[in-house]
Amino acid sequence: MLGGAAVHFALAASFFDEVRMVGPVGDDFGEAELAVLTRRGIDVSDVEHVPGKTFFWRGVYGWDLNSRETLATELGVFEGFAPKLSPPSRDSDVLFLANIQPDLQREVRQQLPQARFTALDSMDLWIDIARDSLISAIAAVDCLILNDSELRQLTGKPNVLAAAREILAWESGPRAVVAKQGEYGATLITAQDFFSLPAFPLESVVDPTGAGDTFAGGFMGFIAAHLEEQVDDELLRQAMAYGTALASFNVQEFGTERIERLTGEEIADRVRELARMTRFEAVPVSLRA
Amino acid sequence: MLGGAAVHFALAASFFDEVRMVGPVGDDFGEAELAVLTRRGIDVSDVEHVPGKTFFWRGVYGWDLNSRETLATELGVFEGFAPKLSPPSRDSDVLFLANIQPDLQREVRQQLPQARFTALDSMDLWIDIARDSLISAIAAVDCLILNDSELRQLTGKPNVLAAAREILAWESGPRAVVAKQGEYGATLITAQDFFSLPAFPLESVVDPTGAGDTFAGGFMGFIAAHLEEQVDDELLRQAMAYGTALASFNVQEFGTERIERLTGEEIADRVRELARMTRFEAVPVSLRA
Repeated sequence: MLGGAAVHFALAASFFDEVRMVGPVGDDFGEAELAVLTRRGIDVSDVEHVPGKTFFWRGVYGWDLNSRETLATELGVFEGFAPKLSPPSRDSDVLFLANIQPDLQREVRQQLPQARFTALDSMDLWIDIARDSLISAIAAVDCLILNDSELRQLTGKPNVLAAAREILAWESGPRAVVAKQGEYGATLITAQDFFSLPAFPLESVVDPTGAGDTFAGGFMGFIAAHLEEQVDDELLRQAMAYGTALASFNVQEFGTERIERLTGEEIADRVRELARMTRFEAVPVSLRA
Repeated sequence: MLGGAAVHFALAASFFDEVRMVGPVGDDFGEAELAVLTRRGIDVSDVEHVPGKTFFWRGVYGWDLNSRETLATELGVFEGFAPKLSPPSRDSDVLFLANIQPDLQREVRQQLPQARFTALDSMDLWIDIARDSLISAIAAVDCLILNDSELRQLTGKPNVLAAAREILAWESGPRAVVAKQGEYGATLITAQDFFSLPAFPLESVVDPTGAGDTFAGGFMGFIAAHLEEQVDDELLRQAMAYGTALASFNVQEFGTERIERLTGEEIADRVRELARMTRFEAVPVSLRA
């Protein structure tokens, strides 16, 4: 079914601002698939149609959804892909580099020298086989968004906070690190701030595929919609809440099914609920010496 | 070194109220070990000295501390243990039943029929081999405190929220479930409330042993110190914060080292920091239909 990082990201971000999607699709990506994007107002001018098959992934999740096994990965039209950005895409203020070979991420990043907020995602494969290139790509963005296991792997540090702080301390490192933690939520670490938010509680999770990219879409979309303000730690915290809310809808049904019929009111409700379910009063207590 | 559920629990709870500890120790548990408890004002009258060796556990943690392997478990004086409670212990308002064979937990629970708030912890072994007895024990307490994997195992439900709600719906079930989530913190589920709190962020975690019992000590201690108020969801949230703060100190050094020299001011500071690092404003956003 329809999926992929760019699709999930773009659908989530489309609730906040104009989104231009860049990437290759194959012959199997037809009008029905494009319509899912255009119905949400996503600009697909830079979606490149290439002879062949669209990237395809098939996998199976473990009983509690905390592990997954890849059964098939078919690169298809991703093989030999060279991103081509139209002038409007190159003028974007906000850029998200979804998981792909880090040399390609750097190339795209260089085409948007004036972008005001940039982030990237990656995966264990690139940490393994293209580590130096990935580190250069990370150095060129404002925010790194990774799973906590990937942060550990990237830095060799078993502790996620220590790993994030090491990355923030790199000579030309990002100013924010988001550790994605699956069912446990996500954590934001900056030079001055630590902010942790649980996943929105759901009794039934149908399909976690794309949750991370949907989170990133809500997170980056919120930032894009608030660029007239200072992108400070408080704004990033609010962006985390919107990313978390979007991701929670994504996992309730397969593929893009739930997000396709999502409303702004539903998103706002869930953000308010998240605020309620994480709040407590730090009441002073008389403690015994 | 000194450890064990009752020791970790009692030390943490001692910051909030009088604590009476019940359990057997062997010949190797001497004045030095007792002094760690009595220095914090813990009443050790019901600590029973039995010929033999104190319960002993040895294990090794994985690189990121999220898994551990047991190398040795020696029951020692726990074999044939029958808890004997003195009249002052039986008059306690608050009771924590640390992990042990659930028949013993039920026996102790029956000796405190007037207790105003009771909780128990358990483990995978008892879910495996004494499930019915464990379920009866759980039915007799106000609050179940388990790891999330144990909640899954106990109910056969892969989803922790669904698992907790099933337990809350048991005919004579507890009114609160706390899911301990290790480095990710802890979640409180009641009929009306869901509250999730991250672990306090630490760049260096030395020894997670006893973190769960230290959490329980802070949680139950806070409740014990506020019994003149209604033990409602808001109070339980605050108790979660104190439990989380206490647990975070425990893991910073080995065994009981850090808690032994902990001050009330340090605890209060960490609770205030936890409130800061989980708070965000749910600002309304104009979302695109």
